[in-house]
Amino acid sequence: MADKIMSRGGFTLPGEAGYEDLTLELAEKWGADAIRDSDGTVLSEAIISADYDIYSTICLVRADNDWAKSHRDKLQQNYLMSYPVIAQQETVEIDLLSGFFREQFEVNAKDDPRRWWQVFDRTTGEEIPKDRWFFDSATGTVKVKDVKKWHKITVNFLVYRIWEAISMYNHITNDWGDREHQMPVDPIYPETQEFMLSYLQKWLDDHPKTKIVRFTSLFYNFAWFWGDPAMQRFIYSDWGSYEMTVSPYAMTLYAKSRGYEMTSEDFVNGGAYCSSHNVPSERLLDWMDFMNEFVIQFGRKCIDLIHAANKTAYMFYDDHWVGTEPYGKQFKELGFDGLIKCVFNAFEVRLCAGVRGVKTTELRLHPYLFPTGLKGEPTFMEGGDPTLDAKRFWAYIRRGLLRAPIDRIGLGGYLHLVQDFPDFVEEIERITGEFRTLKQFHAVGRPYTAPVKVAVLTAWGSLRSWVYVGHFIPGMELYEVTESLAGLPVEVTFISFTDIMNNGIPEDVDVILNAGKVGTAWSGGDHWKNEKIIEAITEWVANGGGFIGIGEPSAAQHSSQYFQLSHLLGVDREIGVTLNKNKRTYSVFGKNHFIFKDINEGIDFGTDIDNIFIVDKNTTVLAEKENSPTIAVKKCGAGRSVYLSGFRFAPYNTRLLHRSLYWTAGQEQNFGPWTCSNVNTDCAYYPANHKLVVINNKNQMENTKVFDANGKAIDVSLDANGLYIIDL
Amino acid sequence: MADKIMSRGGFTLPGEAGYEDLTLELAEKWGADAIRDSDGTVLSEAIISADYDIYSTICLVRADNDWAKSHRDKLQQNYLMSYPVIAQQETVEIDLLSGFFREQFEVNAKDDPRRWWQVFDRTTGEEIPKDRWFFDSATGTVKVKDVKKWHKITVNFLVYRIWEAISMYNHITNDWGDREHQMPVDPIYPETQEFMLSYLQKWLDDHPKTKIVRFTSLFYNFAWFWGDPAMQRFIYSDWGSYEMTVSPYAMTLYAKSRGYEMTSEDFVNGGAYCSSHNVPSERLLDWMDFMNEFVIQFGRKCIDLIHAANKTAYMFYDDHWVGTEPYGKQFKELGFDGLIKCVFNAFEVRLCAGVRGVKTTELRLHPYLFPTGLKGEPTFMEGGDPTLDAKRFWAYIRRGLLRAPIDRIGLGGYLHLVQDFPDFVEEIERITGEFRTLKQFHAVGRPYTAPVKVAVLTAWGSLRSWVYVGHFIPGMELYEVTESLAGLPVEVTFISFTDIMNNGIPEDVDVILNAGKVGTAWSGGDHWKNEKIIEAITEWVANGGGFIGIGEPSAAQHSSQYFQLSHLLGVDREIGVTLNKNKRTYSVFGKNHFIFKDINEGIDFGTDIDNIFIVDKNTTVLAEKENSPTIAVKKCGAGRSVYLSGFRFAPYNTRLLHRSLYWTAGQEQNFGPWTCSNVNTDCAYYPANHKLVVINNKNQMENTKVFDANGKAIDVSLDANGLYIIDL
Repeated sequence: MADKIMSRGGFTLPGEAGYEDLTLELAEKWGADAIRDSDGTVLSEAIISADYDIYSTICLVRADNDWAKSHRDKLQQNYLMSYPVIAQQETVEIDLLSGFFREQFEVNAKDDPRRWWQVFDRTTGEEIPKDRWFFDSATGTVKVKDVKKWHKITVNFLVYRIWEAISMYNHITNDWGDREHQMPVDPIYPETQEFMLSYLQKWLDDHPKTKIVRFTSLFYNFAWFWGDPAMQRFIYSDWGSYEMTVSPYAMTLYAKSRGYEMTSEDFVNGGAYCSSHNVPSERLLDWMDFMNEFVIQFGRKCIDLIHAANKTAYMFYDDHWVGTEPYGKQFKELGFDGLIKCVFNAFEVRLCAGVRGVKTTELRLHPYLFPTGLKGEPTFMEGGDPTLDAKRFWAYIRRGLLRAPIDRIGLGGYLHLVQDFPDFVEEIERITGEFRTLKQFHAVGRPYTAPVKVAVLTAWGSLRSWVYVGHFIPGMELYEVTESLAGLPVEVTFISFTDIMNNGIPEDVDVILNAGKVGTAWSGGDHWKNEKIIEAITEWVANGGGFIGIGEPSAAQHSSQYFQLSHLLGVDREIGVTLNKNKRTYSVFGKNHFIFKDINEGIDFGTDIDNIFIVDKNTTVLAEKENSPTIAVKKCGAGRSVYLSGFRFAPYNTRLLHRSLYWTAGQEQNFGPWTCSNVNTDCAYYPANHKLVVINNKNQMENTKVFDANGKAIDVSLDANGLYIIDL
Repeated sequence: MADKIMSRGGFTLPGEAGYEDLTLELAEKWGADAIRDSDGTVLSEAIISADYDIYSTICLVRADNDWAKSHRDKLQQNYLMSYPVIAQQETVEIDLLSGFFREQFEVNAKDDPRRWWQVFDRTTGEEIPKDRWFFDSATGTVKVKDVKKWHKITVNFLVYRIWEAISMYNHITNDWGDREHQMPVDPIYPETQEFMLSYLQKWLDDHPKTKIVRFTSLFYNFAWFWGDPAMQRFIYSDWGSYEMTVSPYAMTLYAKSRGYEMTSEDFVNGGAYCSSHNVPSERLLDWMDFMNEFVIQFGRKCIDLIHAANKTAYMFYDDHWVGTEPYGKQFKELGFDGLIKCVFNAFEVRLCAGVRGVKTTELRLHPYLFPTGLKGEPTFMEGGDPTLDAKRFWAYIRRGLLRAPIDRIGLGGYLHLVQDFPDFVEEIERITGEFRTLKQFHAVGRPYTAPVKVAVLTAWGSLRSWVYVGHFIPGMELYEVTESLAGLPVEVTFISFTDIMNNGIPEDVDVILNAGKVGTAWSGGDHWKNEKIIEAITEWVANGGGFIGIGEPSAAQHSSQYFQLSHLLGVDREIGVTLNKNKRTYSVFGKNHFIFKDINEGIDFGTDIDNIFIVDKNTTVLAEKENSPTIAVKKCGAGRSVYLSGFRFAPYNTRLLHRSLYWTAGQEQNFGPWTCSNVNTDCAYYPANHKLVVINNKNQMENTKVFDANGKAIDVSLDANGLYIIDL
């Protein structure tokens, strides 16, 4: 039934000195074509000399601690907001680092505090004039005078980071004792750049056998602030936030480039910092753009050195990825040859597959070959079941691979750990086989995709395509829905409010999807107060567009509605301002609607937005919970809308979404071809080579019917987690 | 054990012509001293001539429909906001009454629409200039030109009410067929006043035997807007809202009096109208004050006529009560002799008992002698159990009567209905006995009250003492907590933010309580952005005050905190702007805290505010739900705070509140005297005559210990719903 498939290539194996036989044996069994080192492992001469591409990791910002120690003013910096103090008197004294991890941060007393810091009265939200406070570097405190009694006072201040965040995490997690703390240097300074380039050149000279240079990302870590361990270990972390790119030097360059100055409060933001969850200000986007320009410009110089040494450069799309912005417009100018993403979910597959400007995309599979997983749970040790873990993650990942091509997969960690888990070795062999099959099919031609294109509308737009704040966040509507989308046979694009303002709604888009809680970047926050946005979407829907709103779509406290598109959605939310207005009654239409077909279980979104009420007699409620509609649909002129009070990635909900996309696009008559009757299964048809792939997402046997282009049903019986190929 | 108690007096019986024997027999059995008529009943000569005070009802604004019909421009008015229309073109036409009940409202085409109406673009929230729209009185529509396409357009317009709300409700509920619709006339016009006074004088002359004239309130009904019955019967209702007092004439008088004009939008408020749930604007409070002045001034003239006829005047504190404001500063100037409140709950008892300026307070008990109750449930008919209903309501009401004196109780409705329910007759006899006992004890001296005075802080303050928007609203934190307070031996006062601004926190207050959801009048809304309020409360707590916050206390989206008193409460709420800030961890202290004593069951607040996190290492979490603290306490300088994530009136929660009041007041060492060990029981000690009253709030036997002033326990065993008196 299945064609002969490739049995080698596209696989990166973590080698390990001292286990040369095992390394070469598994390289053969899994069909590896590249062998890598990992944090904590090295490759021996026997491995390096075998016939595999060699693949070495490097992280330039923490590469040479001696240089860092002798250039402490070149360490990376960031702003912190001191813990609030309530003024008991008209003078307050604030110990800046109180509550913070003093091993991570050191107050920057070098750059003039009066120039770069700000003190705020957080009761009123107003800045306290600079002549009312002074910094005492001997005690690390700020004294503020003439404050209003009983008000809350905070200081925005600059710190050097004296312990690089990722190595700090590894150091503390693995209890590395008195091993020296690595410090991150900032490439923004010409002197640092000069050092880094010379370091890199020497490293290249020292690694003649290395074919692929893998950057543990580039220069700036995602934001990660730690607290006094006696009080609170972790204070703030955001995979997309640019907090850690800040320094007076960079801010000075920025002011020259942009013609205005950033302030500390632009980054501190009342203590909320610049979280990806929040709607970015124009100023923040401008700063990100500026840092992106810098990272690309200097990163390019590093990559040019690598290319000059006849090696290729890959980036690990994690850790110090900030400033590279793989979905930014300039990314391709960096010149990376490959991009590696570690993956648990389908959305991460699509994230990696969707990046333009690299030749090679690679997935790093979980579980890593470590004794424990990310949350400390046992993996390759007693109590762990790495084979089951691998199956489970693969079942998620494979949904994405059905839709989008990836060039390589691989593992990381300590190879010797697999010796006690022969089942795992077999499972990886099975996985590599499935991976190569799908890769081969994609190479011939893209799979059937429905005549439905959905645009996910957020405040970030395409810059945060597929990924929002890093790993999957359970309960965050947009992650949940994106994981469903990642395996559906529809086209997906990501747009921002600014895109709509500048270019209107793209002509090829059939459905706009907006999902999230009020005020977040995902729902859109104050962008919904922009009448031009309301006009554009309302007109577009009236003329036949589809709109799917999830959670608090279009929500903003503005004028006389809360959902600013309540006239399209047919529902709004009672947030306490119209409590005495009686709400329209409705009857629940039930499960005969098109979007409910195939769904035999009760819909469960996990958490629902409550107090929803209908605002239009033409709103059809399909489901409710505690007298609050949870699913409502409406026809609006030639267009249609679907409202869902929440979303959770689950087979039935994915089908509900799939059908909602067709229905809102007015394409329900075209639903059928290349769909499965059983919602626990998925299929993809590759018309160029007449292959139909059916997968079972469940760890148990499943039977399903697959419908072909003519509506003919093909019965398929699938093993647990099985993949089945049919020639048509 | 019990003293001999009064067996007659303080009871108002509804008499019924045709049932003279029954009337007089029950008057004797229940110890009535007054006999009343009811809506739908009359008293015959035999009843009137018996030795009872006669008590007749009158409602002046709907008294003479012929006069109303011949003075249609004197009908009462109000503003409505038309249902929103989305502009598909640059011109829209809006059918004003579409969606409204056309039998209740008639567009006022007499007063110049251009002068009194407004048209709004509700997408932007901006008014559309008056020269862009015109009203077509022939079609009842407004045409608006040059609107922005796809925007939402509404009209604020004036209507006459052509069917008086309460009689409309009775008419439709009781299916009165083609009986003429009664129309409400507006006493704001001199001509109406003249007519009303002459009507009243004639009525007084025609009712020589009437001793007590009971106004079915005075002139203006609480707001009650009905919709097109085919779409939505009820649109808006608010027991405290002044919507129905509006007219161009009144607005003109107002402008002269206050020096500025009210606009339609002051009343329409984006379609939210002027709900009691919302923080009142200064303008709205000013309008209420103006109408209160008018009602008192003209109401006084009516009452003077009654007094001149040697009769007394009582007001029924419901229906047309708007403008009388029994808790307003001017109420006593009205000159009412008595006030009647129908009651289901203890807070209504306290509401009635707390009014100053009347000699007599009276409660109208439920169930009314009607076949069905307020919600249509069977009462005096097959399937009903009026005896159980009476027991149940009495158990609630009695908690309030333990603390505050009331002069009279009574019933309403059709007396003959009790003939089939002899148990009910016995139950009322028991109730009247208990009522007279408590009245007698109060007459000797007030019961023991704890050394704790709590001030309930809302945007309304004392104007809405005890009652907020009418009947009890389950799930509304402040009603739930007020029902608990109504039976506790503490002093209760009600203050507003303006009170604090003008006078500071009253010296005799020990604890401030703030309960409700963000943005509501109960929590306080934008008042919490006022730094003076924050300063005042923070300083006061630091110096020893107590603060109890329930739900979203002090909540406002302002500066860097959501609970503006998070520094006192020790907790704040994640509303989506600091999602990536890790929250402090805590351990749950558990049930050894003072406020948890006596409580053997799990605390259940019904609905909780979620996503609470602690902001201070000194916050002690006593309970949590899904990783969100539900009960937290904190010491703040010399003061203390308690945070509760919700509240539901239940015996254990009442005890939790009782103890929280003592703890935050720093009075825990004084807890004990005159408390019960069993939370299902309450007690009150009347020191002036050495009587201890113990009541069982449950419909089952309960045993309890009562602790006297020396901490000595007195064991008491109580019948279901029983009341027990101990001489000390």
